Amino acid sequence: MRRHNRTALLRRLHVDGPSTRASLAAELGLNRSTIKALVDGLGEAGVVAERVPAQRSGAGRPSLLVLPQPHAAVVIAIDVRVEQVAMGFVGLGGEILGRDSWNLHNRTRDPGEVITHIVESARLMADDLDVTAVGVGVSVPGVVRRSDGQVHEAPNLHWSGVALGKRLEAVLKLPVQVGNDAELGALAEHVRGAAQSSSDMVYISADVGVGGGVILSGQPLRGAGGYVGELGHMVVRPGGRRCYCGCEGCWETEVGEPALCRALGLPDDAPRGAVVAALRALDDPSLLDEFADWLALGLANIVNILGPELVVLGDLYTALPTSLVDSVGTVVQQRSLVSRAVGGTQVVTSPLGRDAKLIGAAELAFEPVLDAL
Amino acid sequence: MRRHNRTALLRRLHVDGPSTRASLAAELGLNRSTIKALVDGLGEAGVVAERVPAQRSGAGRPSLLVLPQPHAAVVIAIDVRVEQVAMGFVGLGGEILGRDSWNLHNRTRDPGEVITHIVESARLMADDLDVTAVGVGVSVPGVVRRSDGQVHEAPNLHWSGVALGKRLEAVLKLPVQVGNDAELGALAEHVRGAAQSSSDMVYISADVGVGGGVILSGQPLRGAGGYVGELGHMVVRPGGRRCYCGCEGCWETEVGEPALCRALGLPDDAPRGAVVAALRALDDPSLLDEFADWLALGLANIVNILGPELVVLGDLYTALPTSLVDSVGTVVQQRSLVSRAVGGTQVVTSPLGRDAKLIGAAELAFEPVLDAL
Repeated sequence: MRRHNRTALLRRLHVDGPSTRASLAAELGLNRSTIKALVDGLGEAGVVAERVPAQRSGAGRPSLLVLPQPHAAVVIAIDVRVEQVAMGFVGLGGEILGRDSWNLHNRTRDPGEVITHIVESARLMADDLDVTAVGVGVSVPGVVRRSDGQVHEAPNLHWSGVALGKRLEAVLKLPVQVGNDAELGALAEHVRGAAQSSSDMVYISADVGVGGGVILSGQPLRGAGGYVGELGHMVVRPGGRRCYCGCEGCWETEVGEPALCRALGLPDDAPRGAVVAALRALDDPSLLDEFADWLALGLANIVNILGPELVVLGDLYTALPTSLVDSVGTVVQQRSLVSRAVGGTQVVTSPLGRDAKLIGAAELAFEPVLDAL
Repeated sequence: MRRHNRTALLRRLHVDGPSTRASLAAELGLNRSTIKALVDGLGEAGVVAERVPAQRSGAGRPSLLVLPQPHAAVVIAIDVRVEQVAMGFVGLGGEILGRDSWNLHNRTRDPGEVITHIVESARLMADDLDVTAVGVGVSVPGVVRRSDGQVHEAPNLHWSGVALGKRLEAVLKLPVQVGNDAELGALAEHVRGAAQSSSDMVYISADVGVGGGVILSGQPLRGAGGYVGELGHMVVRPGGRRCYCGCEGCWETEVGEPALCRALGLPDDAPRGAVVAALRALDDPSLLDEFADWLALGLANIVNILGPELVVLGDLYTALPTSLVDSVGTVVQQRSLVSRAVGGTQVVTSPLGRDAKLIGAAELAFEPVLDAL
């Protein structure tokens, strides 16, 4: 019970930040002497600190403010993207203490090369920051088995059957959790982003490929063997463009980054910066009409199948014009039987932007850490 | 604890049928004296009976066979279809003790008329069978809120905003549970059909409309507000046939009963018997090639999004030629990234056939009953 309360308290501080003893007691349904004992224990372990709040409210002695100490538990978060790897050291409470990133090209996309680079970078950053990490979370754009970090297929990386979790654990000597990028985006939005108050939501990850992470009844949705779905490979345009997955007309081929580039009159493989600049400078919004139609069609399908109350558009989609996102949201509400039933599914862009998967990878790594602190 | 063990024992007998005390003890992890006390208590209440098994195995005194008594708890199961209502009185253990059914036409599809007919028929059957029902389960082809049995929309019935659960409770004076038909088909297959050993499965309900019920990690999948998804309204053919839901090219418009009729050269609204007869007498299987393509495309999408290990084709689809089902299964495995990851999603037809939703409605009604017996 004490262990359970301690973990609940830590999770509350980690997710929502500093809070007074009084608020913590009220929120967790514990009496003040229990909170005091727990906070004192965590304070002695250096996991939290206390201070008198800057602003006093009301009369009487102020309740002390309890602050999570970032260096008390640091995890390594890694976001493997198609064009880039981003890495962050993230402290208790969610602060990103340090970052590194490097571009991937065909040669350096080899799993062995990626692992070597991750390990070297992690060692340098640990030295620079003078911290010892206690866990690792990795986001991969592909079909991933959560139990052991096996990457079954990550087609845009040209990875197949990569034992990423096991291989990283062997060299980093730390517990490693590997998740699908869209699932981790959903986790990040649920914990720190647009979906904090939503228990039924879908996060759409839009990079070169398009994926979806789903939380229903507050739990991540997974299929057989713990695999996460591949929403981007829903066929929406039979006879359409050939996709690397073997099908034609996958949603991803109509709404992924190359499709957006074509709509904007850019080369298929234009750098992200150029795509974002073109979106910001867009004179004629009608250029994106067809793109918006396909986006709305796929989202309406997803809403009809899963029934979320909220869809969060991540990554590249955070650069879409607000008017486009709004009109897509309206179409989804009109077109989906299930949206009408659930009271109108909202479509919004991610406030976490490009960091969503990194944040999600950190939260994945923190899950076992918070239990053990 | 005793209550928990009693419910577990009852559920085991209800689902799997008669069993010896020895097997029950082993399966439930209880010692023989606990089983004896529970069985004696249920025997005194008339819920189970015991007898010496017909076939003795091994030496020594045979373990008594424990049999659930169908009349100890009887529920009313109602399957409201587009063309017909089917009703069954179902006893503990799952035996259908009596049945009734009647056709629906536009006039008699009015919710008030349907409710009146259900109530009259239920009273007559209760008299005939000399039983008192203790609960009611209803299957409806539409968007249903499980908490209170509110039918938000059942488009093929032309129902909208029908408080079916509340209205039936008011007249039947019994607890009423209302579920989406495809969800109840999935429940039936999970408890008594093709998916007894599968915890990640999708049931496809194919009547005039097409729907899907999903079980992942052993739990029914529901979205916000408890609403179940509408898989049949996934758009697979943009610009295709107009669907009553307001979209064009819904999966249902390509693989529902009218589409199958067109492929077979029958009128769109041919009676079910004629459709089944035409399928059985099919000379030229290539007539169904396009239908099979759309079926496979939609199923591959569903598998990519949800990652089940098993898809059960119900209702009308149980009359499809085996060769067609097999080839659709092969295409789904080839086309779906996620099927490949989960080790090859199997596609099979329902062994429960047209009774699946009735059986599912009965199981829905039994859930609270087993807890209370």
